Amino acid sequence: MMIAEILSVGDELLIGRTVNNNAAFMGKLLAATGIETQWLTSVGDQMERLVSAIETAWNRVDIVLMTGGLGPTHDDITKDALCRFFNVDMTFHPEIVAEMKTRYKAREMEMPKIVNNQGLIPAGAELIRNELGSAFGLIFNRNGKVLIALPGVPFEMERMMVDSVIPFLKRFSGEHTILMKSIRTAGIIESKLVTEFRRLDEVRQLAGVAVLPKLTGVELRLTVSHDSREQAHQIMERAVRITREDIGQWIVAVGDVMLEDVIGAALTHMNMTVSVAESCTGGLVANRLTNTPGSSKYFIGGAVCYSNEIKHSLLNVPAELLNSYGAVSAEVAEAMAEGVRKRMKTDYGVATTGIAGPGGATEKKPVGLAFVAVAGPNGVVSEKVLFNVDRQHNKKRFAQASLNLLWKQLPQKYRTLAQKEVDHEG
Amino acid sequence: MMIAEILSVGDELLIGRTVNNNAAFMGKLLAATGIETQWLTSVGDQMERLVSAIETAWNRVDIVLMTGGLGPTHDDITKDALCRFFNVDMTFHPEIVAEMKTRYKAREMEMPKIVNNQGLIPAGAELIRNELGSAFGLIFNRNGKVLIALPGVPFEMERMMVDSVIPFLKRFSGEHTILMKSIRTAGIIESKLVTEFRRLDEVRQLAGVAVLPKLTGVELRLTVSHDSREQAHQIMERAVRITREDIGQWIVAVGDVMLEDVIGAALTHMNMTVSVAESCTGGLVANRLTNTPGSSKYFIGGAVCYSNEIKHSLLNVPAELLNSYGAVSAEVAEAMAEGVRKRMKTDYGVATTGIAGPGGATEKKPVGLAFVAVAGPNGVVSEKVLFNVDRQHNKKRFAQASLNLLWKQLPQKYRTLAQKEVDHEG
Repeated sequence: MMIAEILSVGDELLIGRTVNNNAAFMGKLLAATGIETQWLTSVGDQMERLVSAIETAWNRVDIVLMTGGLGPTHDDITKDALCRFFNVDMTFHPEIVAEMKTRYKAREMEMPKIVNNQGLIPAGAELIRNELGSAFGLIFNRNGKVLIALPGVPFEMERMMVDSVIPFLKRFSGEHTILMKSIRTAGIIESKLVTEFRRLDEVRQLAGVAVLPKLTGVELRLTVSHDSREQAHQIMERAVRITREDIGQWIVAVGDVMLEDVIGAALTHMNMTVSVAESCTGGLVANRLTNTPGSSKYFIGGAVCYSNEIKHSLLNVPAELLNSYGAVSAEVAEAMAEGVRKRMKTDYGVATTGIAGPGGATEKKPVGLAFVAVAGPNGVVSEKVLFNVDRQHNKKRFAQASLNLLWKQLPQKYRTLAQKEVDHEG
Repeated sequence: MMIAEILSVGDELLIGRTVNNNAAFMGKLLAATGIETQWLTSVGDQMERLVSAIETAWNRVDIVLMTGGLGPTHDDITKDALCRFFNVDMTFHPEIVAEMKTRYKAREMEMPKIVNNQGLIPAGAELIRNELGSAFGLIFNRNGKVLIALPGVPFEMERMMVDSVIPFLKRFSGEHTILMKSIRTAGIIESKLVTEFRRLDEVRQLAGVAVLPKLTGVELRLTVSHDSREQAHQIMERAVRITREDIGQWIVAVGDVMLEDVIGAALTHMNMTVSVAESCTGGLVANRLTNTPGSSKYFIGGAVCYSNEIKHSLLNVPAELLNSYGAVSAEVAEAMAEGVRKRMKTDYGVATTGIAGPGGATEKKPVGLAFVAVAGPNGVVSEKVLFNVDRQHNKKRFAQASLNLLWKQLPQKYRTLAQKEVDHEG
């Protein structure tokens, strides 16, 4: 198996002005090509450190993938660093400059003089065309090792990775296969999930297992790496089967999908509809449900009701409930769910009410307290949530709790159908 | 000046399933503390490589900041790696486990046995409290160098960085100052902004300038690094003043704030209220407005109206408008804005209607077409939006357009007041 390092160049990465989405994009594609990335390194626009980073990477892996620093300005030093490291000179490629002139002309613009620098290329490098920008990519192929340098502009890099780099690297990776499966759970915390997963060690013998707690539910990631494509698939199948047997009741879906997608698939099969009444989540539940393409088939509408008056006038929540239990109560959550279900004439109604903070707490009701409710053909249920990080995180956790409660109310038959559909796509 | 390396641990980073937002967050805070990050390294959950990465970092910088691998499960190996590197044993801290038991009890849950592992701490490490999770942070302080290990869960790490790590590191950073300012604009695209910014080169002499196009408006980030705190502030002030003079009319706020925060500050000063009627944005506008703490003062409610029937029954959009112009039209957007303003008895009403895709396009109305409208004390206005990347990006762009239209309708006097307030805080 070939081993890779991704080396990103740019001060903006070090001071956190740019999040390194490029490295994630490249790592994903490399894994899908059967190449194992063992290191990600970011270094600034500084010659000595850059050359030392190139040297370290070149010595410890088979494939070095670089991004950034290929532009024409003074702070772009990647080409100079490569000349130093490979001990070669710069050569001038007039055909690159000629092509750039043609492209500028096509856009009815004059080519700025500085673009001439893009014709300078370290001797001995193969070129990778860049259809979307002026920085061509470079390949150094020496003694069975490869170094590839790409521009840092995401859409240029992405196009070049897909069109040129991955086809080029496939020659090296052979039959080796790396498979990944996301398994999304809901309604269970990380430490409990791991405890219930009794044959986790057995699965670890088959696959890499990462347990990732998120505000949209704990996610498991299984990774299988094998020299035979067929065997990799068989091993993954076994790992997923054992996982299902152990913790199936909390699995929402196998595949890179969200809870709202599976809910949508189930509602579509049921030919039923849903509406939402939100207080503390402020539109987030509706936003998640409508993120799923085609949600207009089953999502009818939502009401964000911050004031008690609107809760009463729009959702028919009785004033005496609001007065005796307070807006943040199981009783009001249930009345909101029933109210919106009736108001919007849907099969299900989902509701949230709580204190997202930082203000709004009372002696008996702390920030982070919420109630979620779901009204449906078989009546209404509600759940209490206690979770406090900060306003935006709290909103996310409350929204997740309400969608999970909705999911649990859907008939098992349709949940299974929806899961199968989604599994198939993943 | 102190030099840092950020070392992130986790297979999910290498295979691109997780983007390293943590490193960006930490790099930003370190810079703000006057500490220069020279390396970002990510390595997988594999003992030998992790120990070697720790060693490399320890040898080349003053401060090593680690994240990830502190959880209680088998793939969490950071504490073991630190024991190996520092050649110490694990010690058991019963007080940590006792505290976790209390926390679980407060959330009305039983503590899973596996959480006991969180009491195991490498000998000689100082502890950093984690209010939001069970993995305490670790500080190793030896021979003038520091290694700090934090959990990888973003909100836990962020809280610990702000509350504990940065105050701790300030002792080391001395007078060196790195200042950053975000300048948020709205209603102008990147290339136009750069063209209008005539003295951009002059500002670049004073500060690092990054131009970051985002779906929530183009953002400018200015960075000043200087050995004197006072001078750094003076230089930043000059850079901001020139920027304002050139492109002030598109600046929403100077400071790390969102458009909805400035809108909220203005509405609070005006003592006025807003409500929202959403079709294509599906709750996202309400969600953004309610992300601002204290929004219950001016945000009364929202209606997510996907179906035409609900648009009619809830918002009083006349059926003949829907029939003759279609739901995606300036006429319907305006009627929705007026409808929700009246329904919720607010001073302003905001509305969106459009085609987020991928389905729903007609011959005359493509995916990415939307209309946003704002009704207020001086009548109703609307704007057409054309933008198509994918469903979620489109929703974000439409939501941004509606908030920008609302912002432009607020009286200049209160916009200026709100900006000043926010500038002051930033």
